[in-house]
Order: sequence, then C-alpha cells, then structure tokens
Amino acid sequence: MLSLALPTPNQNHSFNWQAIAQEFAAIVGDRYVVRTREELIAYECDGLTSYRQQPALVVLPSSTQEVSEVLKICDRERIAFVARGSGTGLSGGALPLLDSVLIVTSRMKKILDVDFENQRVVVQPGVINNWVTQAVSGAGFYYAPDPSSQIICSIGGNVAENSGGVHCLKYGVTTNHVLGAKIVLPNGDIKDIGSKIPESPGYDLTGIFVGSEGTLGIATEITLKILKSAESIQVLLADFETVEAAGSTVSDVISAGLIPGGMEIMDNMSINAVEDTVAANCYPRDAAAILLIEVDGLAIEVAESVKRIEEICYRNGARQVSSATDPEQRLRLWKGRKAAFAAMGRMSPDYYVQDGVIPRTKLTYVLQEIEKLSEKYGYPVANVFHAGDGNLHPLILYNNAVDGALEIVEELGGEILKLCVRVGGSISGEHGIGADKKCYMSEMFSESDLETMQWVRDVFDPHAIANPTKILPTPRTCGEGAKPNHDAKYKLVDRF
Amino acid sequence: MLSLALPTPNQNHSFNWQAIAQEFAAIVGDRYVVRTREELIAYECDGLTSYRQQPALVVLPSSTQEVSEVLKICDRERIAFVARGSGTGLSGGALPLLDSVLIVTSRMKKILDVDFENQRVVVQPGVINNWVTQAVSGAGFYYAPDPSSQIICSIGGNVAENSGGVHCLKYGVTTNHVLGAKIVLPNGDIKDIGSKIPESPGYDLTGIFVGSEGTLGIATEITLKILKSAESIQVLLADFETVEAAGSTVSDVISAGLIPGGMEIMDNMSINAVEDTVAANCYPRDAAAILLIEVDGLAIEVAESVKRIEEICYRNGARQVSSATDPEQRLRLWKGRKAAFAAMGRMSPDYYVQDGVIPRTKLTYVLQEIEKLSEKYGYPVANVFHAGDGNLHPLILYNNAVDGALEIVEELGGEILKLCVRVGGSISGEHGIGADKKCYMSEMFSESDLETMQWVRDVFDPHAIANPTKILPTPRTCGEGAKPNHDAKYKLVDRF
Repeated sequence: MLSLALPTPNQNHSFNWQAIAQEFAAIVGDRYVVRTREELIAYECDGLTSYRQQPALVVLPSSTQEVSEVLKICDRERIAFVARGSGTGLSGGALPLLDSVLIVTSRMKKILDVDFENQRVVVQPGVINNWVTQAVSGAGFYYAPDPSSQIICSIGGNVAENSGGVHCLKYGVTTNHVLGAKIVLPNGDIKDIGSKIPESPGYDLTGIFVGSEGTLGIATEITLKILKSAESIQVLLADFETVEAAGSTVSDVISAGLIPGGMEIMDNMSINAVEDTVAANCYPRDAAAILLIEVDGLAIEVAESVKRIEEICYRNGARQVSSATDPEQRLRLWKGRKAAFAAMGRMSPDYYVQDGVIPRTKLTYVLQEIEKLSEKYGYPVANVFHAGDGNLHPLILYNNAVDGALEIVEELGGEILKLCVRVGGSISGEHGIGADKKCYMSEMFSESDLETMQWVRDVFDPHAIANPTKILPTPRTCGEGAKPNHDAKYKLVDRF
Repeated sequence: MLSLALPTPNQNHSFNWQAIAQEFAAIVGDRYVVRTREELIAYECDGLTSYRQQPALVVLPSSTQEVSEVLKICDRERIAFVARGSGTGLSGGALPLLDSVLIVTSRMKKILDVDFENQRVVVQPGVINNWVTQAVSGAGFYYAPDPSSQIICSIGGNVAENSGGVHCLKYGVTTNHVLGAKIVLPNGDIKDIGSKIPESPGYDLTGIFVGSEGTLGIATEITLKILKSAESIQVLLADFETVEAAGSTVSDVISAGLIPGGMEIMDNMSINAVEDTVAANCYPRDAAAILLIEVDGLAIEVAESVKRIEEICYRNGARQVSSATDPEQRLRLWKGRKAAFAAMGRMSPDYYVQDGVIPRTKLTYVLQEIEKLSEKYGYPVANVFHAGDGNLHPLILYNNAVDGALEIVEELGGEILKLCVRVGGSISGEHGIGADKKCYMSEMFSESDLETMQWVRDVFDPHAIANPTKILPTPRTCGEGAKPNHDAKYKLVDRF
C-alpha cells in the first residue's frame, strides 16, 4: 500500500461560500455560478452514476482568463476544484468532491482556428468531439479519436481521460492527436505546452498532461491534428458461433499484417440488448459473437484488404460476412455498437462498465475467466470490446436498488481488472482511473513507481487542490486489499 | 532570459577521484573504469565534434544494478554524470562536463525478450538500433525508427534524444515506439515506467522520459514496439530542376491523402558530395534536387500509390522518375541519402548540421531564406531533409582550423533556427537540444513555459547531477541575445 505524505486540500470546511460565490460571479457573471441544491443535482455525478456528490458551487467560465481568475481564488483559499466537460466520463474523473468547486467548460465551445494546410485545429475544451470532424469534413479531413459518446463528449474531457474509440487500433488514442495546449495551472498561471509541430524539443509536457484526469490543471485551448479522410471505407460484419472464433480472427488479421481502422467484438448478450432496444435490426440474434471490422485507405487497397479479411473470417468459421461501403449502411452497422452501453442501460436497471486491456493473445482465456467470475458472483456480464487493441468493456448488469449489490458488482469488476493485470494487461484502456479504479493502481504499479507519478503531480499542484483523491491510491482512501472507494458518500449540505 | 534558481552540482572540484574510481571499480570491474588521459580522448565528444571536454572518469556498467550503484555514489558525492550510448548524437547531449562521470552503456547490449505475438521487444540501452530489426526480420517484423546512424547508434541514445529517421513521416519518432522502460533515477533508485500495453493509466512518465536527453535518469531496459514488415516496398527517385518543385511535390503528395513511409529531399550540393565520395553513381549530378519517396503496404496499394505519386512528380516538372522494388536496388537508392552527412565530412574539413522543423507549406520560403543567409555569412549550406515532415538538416561547411570560423557558423546556424521558429516551426526535429541549442529554447518557449519544464526536471533530479547545463537555458550559460554556448571550454586536468 502506498504510504505517501499526500498533501491534502483545506478540509476545515469553513469556507465562506457566500463570499466566494460572489467573487466567482464577479469573474464569470452571476448566472454562471450555480449554487442552489436543485440546480446542483445536474452536476452531482458524471457517467459513473453510482458515485454522487454535490459540489459546493459550480462555475462556468467562458475564457482562459476567467479560468485563471477562478483558479487563483481556489489557490488562495485552498479550495479543491474538479474540472468537467460534458460529464460523460465513466470512471468518476469529474465526480465532485464535498466542499469543492466544479469548473464546467461547456461555455468554452469555440473552434478557434482551422489550418487545413498544416492539418491543425485549435479548439476550446467545451467543443464536442464530433464537431471537430463536422467542421473539417467538407474539406476532406476528420478528427480520428472517436469515443462512443462522441456526439456529446467534449475535447477537454477527451484530453483529461486520454479517450480512445473504435479507430484507436490504427490511429492511436487522444494523446497521439494532441500537439499542444494552453493550460491553466492549479495556481492560476497560464502556460503553453507543446506546439503545432509534432517534434517539439524539451520535455513532453503535452504527453504528461493528456490523460492526467484534471489533476495538473485545465486545458483551455487545445491544438489537434486532423487527418485526411480516407478515399474508401468499408465495414465488414462477420458472425460467429463462438466468441473464441471471433477473437482468433482478430489475431489472424493482425498477424497477416493488415491493420483495419477498428475491430470490435460484441457477444450474444450485447447483440440482443442492442436488437431489443435500438432496433438496429442488422445483427444476427443467434450469433455467439459478431465482429465488426472497418477498413480504410485507397479504394484498391481496401478492396484487397477486405478480400483477405473475409478469407480469414471464413477460415475461422464465420457463418456469414456481410459488408457495407456506402455511408448510410456503414453507419447502420456501427449504430448498434455505438449504442451498446445505452442498450444495456435499457435492459437492466443499472450497469457497471469496466475498461481493462489485455494482450490480444490472451483474449480467449480472459473471456472464459470473466464468464467464470460472472457465474461465481451471480451477475451477468456482457462483453463489448475494441478487440483489435485488446481493450475489453465488460458490462456487469445489476440493480442498484438492491442493498449491497453495488459493492458486490464493484468487487466483481475489480476481479476482472486484476485478471487483466495478471495476464500482462492494464486496468484502463480509455476511461481513466478517476475515483473508480485508483485502488487497483497498486495492482499494476509498485509503490515506488506510483511515488514517481506523485512527484510529478506535486510540482504542478503543490497544494493538492486539482481533483484531489483521484487517480493515485492513498491509504486514506483505499482500505486493505484495495477495496473500491466509498469515501465519497453522498452528503447534502445547505450553504445558501 | 530565463532566471531560474537552477540547482547546480557540486562545483568545488575537490572530489577524491582516486577513491571514487576505486569505488566504481569495485562495482563494474577495474577494466571498466577509464581514467587515463589517453583513453579518455575517445570519449571527449559525441557527434557534435566542435565541443570537446574530457570527463574525470568513464564508467561502463553492465547491468541495471551496476548503474544504480554507480549513480548512488554520484548522488552521495553530488558528482555530475552524463550518460552516453554510441556517442553519435549531433547536439552534444553526451558531451562530458568537467569534473563529471561519463556513464557509457555500450556493455549493456542484450536483447532481453522478443515477443512476436504481442509485437514487443525488450532491450538493454546499448543495443544498436539496427540490431533490433535484424533480430526480428526473420519472423517478418521490423523496428520503425531509423536514424541515418542506425548501424551504430544505440537504442538508449535514441530514447534520450527521441530520434527520428526517414520513416517518421508515416510511423512517428522514437516516443511512438517505446512503451515502457526500467529506469535508474539520478539518486540510484530503480523505477518501472509505462508497461507493455500502449494504454497505460496514470501519468505518461514514459512520454516525459523519452527525449529527456539524459537529464531524468538512465534507461536500462526498454520495451519497444515492433511492426509487421510491409508486403511490398518501393522507392522512387524523382529529379527536379528546382528545389521548389521538389518541395511542392511533397505537399501535393500529402494533400492527395497519400502517406509514404518517407520523403527525402537532397539539394544539388548534397547530391554532388555523395556522388564524389560514396560513388553511389545513381543520383543525377545536374539535378537541382532529388526527391526520394518510399512507399510501403500491400502490393496492390503500393502499385496504386506509386502510380499516383509519379503523376504528381511529373505534374510538378520532374525530369525523370525511376523506381526500385527489389531490396538491393532500394538500398542503393537510399545509400547516398544515408551517407550524406559522412559525404559532407569528406567534402569539407568540418561541417555543422542543424535540425530545424518547419510547417511543410513554408518549405520554399525557408530554403530561399537559408540561401540568403548562406550568402550573407559567406559559408556554403547544403540541404538534406526529411521533407515529408518538414524536418530540415542544413549542413554548413567550414574549416575549424580557421580562427573564429566556428563562432560565425554557429551564428549562421542560430539564424536558421530562429527562422524556423518564426514560420511556426521548431528548433529540433530529432537531434535534441543538448549543449548546442539550449540558448535557442527561449526563441520557442516563454520563460514561464521553460520554468514548467524545469520543475519536472527538478523532481527527477533534485541535486542537478544528471547531465546538468544541458537542454534548458540559464543566464549563466547563455549570454545576451542567446549566443551559442562556449562555457564548455576544453580543459585537461591530470588526476591520475
């Protein structure tokens, strides 16, 4: 267990919130400081809805300058702050803390610069992921990282969590597409990191900032790389009688030296959930698994790759392989996958989604072990995953109204993560650690390695006011045996 | 000018070198501690030969444990140390300092693990870049980053300098191929950063370590990604009557959505230098510029891409486009490019190579300005560059025996770097900052941004013993107007 002397924010809870709210109002405008209990409800959780906490205040700044001024007050008063984009994160990264200020970037939604010649776009953090592609697609470009929530999640949140998506296999995650940023440090200082040039000398501060989950400051201008749209895109749908067959198809495609844009597997439970709810009416309900493969490139290259991939699918026992080239059909094939989490939400009162990564070669073994764990704990687990890069998303279905269910489900989720680490994998592929998984960091990193991370955190945030208690485990928040974090018990405090 | 209170290593020069050498000998073996003036000559500079300094001692450890024990002594005594791989760096990153210990990793040359299934290789830092590809090519894989010095430069040095190569356009630089490392911190602590999985949660310490030029510690085990060899590779050689035509061909290829593995331009002076010395006998001596383009992928895709690229070349006025598909012919086309720097060394008593990056769209303008600067200063400048990613390598030819020539040439080099920054570029693409370019960091970064880098440095190296005075500018080492660094005046001290 890590035993760092973690600096803690002011916990005496004696802030004069009335006066502080007035100061914030003077900076951002009165209507952009949210303080009533009813209005705060909208902000009490992010996508990890099993954790809820109202912050003391929500502030919605509109510029770098306003963010800086707000943070200067937090720094002066030693008030903890949590940054939030669209609040779609799944690890509780934007979960407010008691006596904290939630800083929401949704008013900062301008695309500041589009430079087609150099393939760069500069955006504010509140810009929605999908807007970037919309803004540049007319000129033949797109922004590659595409989380399933891309029609609502923000670039600022993507940067914080180093978000992925179905195209990460070929194109990498957010960190591979962010070249630089203007950031506001926890003390309110404004800094520029990186540049418009990928090869920037000195330490790669952009690299360390992306994925830091709001613990090093707030990015207020982000320089993104855009890519030239592929000449041709084709989506294949292969259905299999076993999940293993789908998994070995994925390995064989990679071994053949083919790199599709994305390769996604959905198991039978996910297929039926999607068919029941989104009514996509295109996935075969009786398949043990479907494999969706997107291939992009020159038309002639796509045609050749598709031919070879189809052969590999059939060689692995695919019952059928269908394909779509026109945009509408492609969207239809993807629709079910993109809506898979939402479909689960409609199938079951609650679901808990995990985000482990495993070496692709361990896929069959890990899926079997997950099945065993599911049986042992008595909760169904559906599997939807970025198979190409071994990024699993087991969805555990449960009912939060049943007393004690959440605790058991979190333990099951934890067992799955430990399994991922045991086979040489990781406890997060793209959702981040947040509040949810910090107790499992010790499964993956030694105390000494985590200490190095803490040093870096401390230099950016010496007073530990930037999203404190997130990411790194501390004895204070993680009990013996790395139990899930339930220190964020929901508390309501009347302040106004 | 940056005015940080930079911690400095022990400068009282009163180390008991006899006793320290004995301590090192007890760790690494007596023959692996180099101490006589004659033997130290081999280590007094790296590839930037205009800066020379003998260290007090050279130590050649053979394991992580030995590196750790050596660094513990350096830490205890507050002795500065400089890490060195093969010593091919071009920015003086491995230039020894007076009263420092040079730690050479060339005995640590084992390939520790090859995992074809997951496409990972773990190597010691002294492993030569090219050995990695040699070790895995039989199974159909290769290691992508390929500096021109790849038959001699080490992976440890590549990690320190975040080296590039001709294939960076499509595949990225070293940081995109390093997944994790075992590192020894300046205080001797051994840490693991990153993992075998690309999506590692927490702060991206691997990202910050790669390119840190020996200032954050020494990597002793490095986990690399290997790629599947392409089914087909073709190299095109196009010759042009103007450098501008070659440059606009590059822009047009990228704009067409084609991404070759690499695109390299050599100007007339470079062509003739290569033809005079390496006798490659394959570049047209009367061309204003040649453009080398390597295309890789599926055979059918390469054929299609080559067809389109040839059309673009001719549309831009290429006199001739020849191509090579068989490995021997391809190697011959590349041979001249890879030997270009060496050829300059045989043309002129000395040369000074710069490493600026510019937005591709500014190529013509920047080359014209370089030509003007060359005329103004009266020194010829040859241009060899990674055109696809805008990474210029102007080679300034001069004679170091002429008093004052180096100073003028460095000023000319500095003017070229400032020009690169002025058009929105960078002062280093792949050679690092080292001793050579730290005074130009202020051209690219504000004082406040450099301060953030210094914070990160300080947490890894609180006593400033890891390659001190490198990378970041200080008032102590950079005079007014950011003049080149001549504080490393060559001093010989008899110690044994």
